[in-house]
Amino acid sequence: MISVHLDSGRVEVRQASIPERPAGFALIRLIQAGICNTDLELQRGYYGFSGVPGHEFVGEVVEADSKELIGKRIVGEINLACGDCSWCRRGLGRHCPGRTVLGIVRHAGAFREFLTLPETNLHVVPDSIPTEVAVFTEPLAAACEILDQVQIPCGSAIAVLGDGKLGLLVSQVLQANGLRVHQFGRHPEKLKIAARAGVTTEVRGENLPEAEYQWVVDATGSQSGLHSAIKMVEPRGTVIMKSTVHGEIPVDTAPVIVNEITLVGSRCGRFEPALELLKLAAIDVSSMISERMPLASAPAAFERAAQRGVMKVLLSN
Amino acid sequence: MISVHLDSGRVEVRQASIPERPAGFALIRLIQAGICNTDLELQRGYYGFSGVPGHEFVGEVVEADSKELIGKRIVGEINLACGDCSWCRRGLGRHCPGRTVLGIVRHAGAFREFLTLPETNLHVVPDSIPTEVAVFTEPLAAACEILDQVQIPCGSAIAVLGDGKLGLLVSQVLQANGLRVHQFGRHPEKLKIAARAGVTTEVRGENLPEAEYQWVVDATGSQSGLHSAIKMVEPRGTVIMKSTVHGEIPVDTAPVIVNEITLVGSRCGRFEPALELLKLAAIDVSSMISERMPLASAPAAFERAAQRGVMKVLLSN
Repeated sequence: MISVHLDSGRVEVRQASIPERPAGFALIRLIQAGICNTDLELQRGYYGFSGVPGHEFVGEVVEADSKELIGKRIVGEINLACGDCSWCRRGLGRHCPGRTVLGIVRHAGAFREFLTLPETNLHVVPDSIPTEVAVFTEPLAAACEILDQVQIPCGSAIAVLGDGKLGLLVSQVLQANGLRVHQFGRHPEKLKIAARAGVTTEVRGENLPEAEYQWVVDATGSQSGLHSAIKMVEPRGTVIMKSTVHGEIPVDTAPVIVNEITLVGSRCGRFEPALELLKLAAIDVSSMISERMPLASAPAAFERAAQRGVMKVLLSN
Repeated sequence: MISVHLDSGRVEVRQASIPERPAGFALIRLIQAGICNTDLELQRGYYGFSGVPGHEFVGEVVEADSKELIGKRIVGEINLACGDCSWCRRGLGRHCPGRTVLGIVRHAGAFREFLTLPETNLHVVPDSIPTEVAVFTEPLAAACEILDQVQIPCGSAIAVLGDGKLGLLVSQVLQANGLRVHQFGRHPEKLKIAARAGVTTEVRGENLPEAEYQWVVDATGSQSGLHSAIKMVEPRGTVIMKSTVHGEIPVDTAPVIVNEITLVGSRCGRFEPALELLKLAAIDVSSMISERMPLASAPAAFERAAQRGVMKVLLSN
């Protein structure tokens, strides 16, 4: 089978053998996968990663202990947890200290013809959801995670900073959940996707509103996003941090303390609410697909995904 | 009357006239005041301050619209709010955007023989609380503020980093409220004050426990405190930020996001719970008094307060 490898910043397509399936795991044939910004960061050396990347995917179960899974179209949660620690017992395997993470931490990823994941990580995709929509389940779950962490009263105004892929998923999820979303971005074309979902959008200049929102999501993916979000939030308000930035960033903590602001780090989420939203066709992800390429063209696909203005690049098997 | 002035880092005792009392304000004769680290930071140029500092005090009401206040021994909340905005209407005048702040922002402070404050800011001190104990009401209210912001289940383990004045008030407040406090500091003599209140104390080296507490308070007053607190808190845990540090500090936001940590900025608090704790004699503040000096010796008192190991320096009128 073919398998995509990252090694010292190079993307290579290699021949590999079909992975062994441990007990409790499913062997999955890849159908389609998405390139995420995290994959581009892994390529740049983030986490000192070398190996098979890929964690957004739809596959078909080929072999499994649970026979009813075989032949099913599935998506898979990316954290492989021990299942036995206090985190796992509380349903928070995403924070299991012994976890590996598909395509990120010590578990080969989805950019290969066949992959393995624990059966407990799998969710069958409802027939009504097209494959190239279901590929967005993982990042959509990360957007939904906000609502699992922070209780925001229905009808509240909330600002979303950033109009990249994650920003657009976040704004649509929040809007679909009854919040009044104001999204600030730099790309009129991208903002239109959110605007069609009812989000109030604004092409931002350097001046953003100050101390105006009780809730602000930083999904800029940039160093300066947190600084801007802290300025936009009102006293006693909450900033949800969705921008993983590599390395240390300078933060002026005085306004956080003086204005008693809460900052909430937010990462992966449960797949259930994400699949539910996709089943309801409540989120437009199709408009975010820039390109569909075969798995064998992964090196070109990574280049394409890194270009300015390009959104989701899909890899098909 | 005499009045203490800060000007370009110098502490001067000047002659001044007794301040005018606007309607709704009380004229207060200072009895005793405390020098806070914020006063030392104002001296160093923080907030570009020049004027009369001082915001921790006990006074006697000399003149007031409300005749029942006259002659009473009082403490005063330091934020002078408009009383009319949405913040004030929600009882959060501490965040009123139009506020001035006693001895900090555009309202002359308490280090003078007579001062003025709105009558609504005043709390009569119960007779059972000695004056030099009541001087601690303001910083104690700041410690109590944590429990107004964050819901911490009774009996929870919570780490307090830092054994300065605020750290010792925080650890005692939390312990008195039914939490199991573990305090980490560098000064065995200071930690003894908390230990006598039932706090588990530890003289820290460079290695602190990692990912061990669901709740961590950073009261170090140092740049590195936030970094340490983020390392000590477990995934999905909460760091309460009590260290106002001047300027930007480098923060590695990746662990905050990956571990979904919540950071809560925390500043001033309500005086009611602080006075209640002092009335119950539940907090040992007397052990934190290093020195009592007359108001006229303010220059020497500021020098003394800035010395290593010195805790509270009180100024008496």
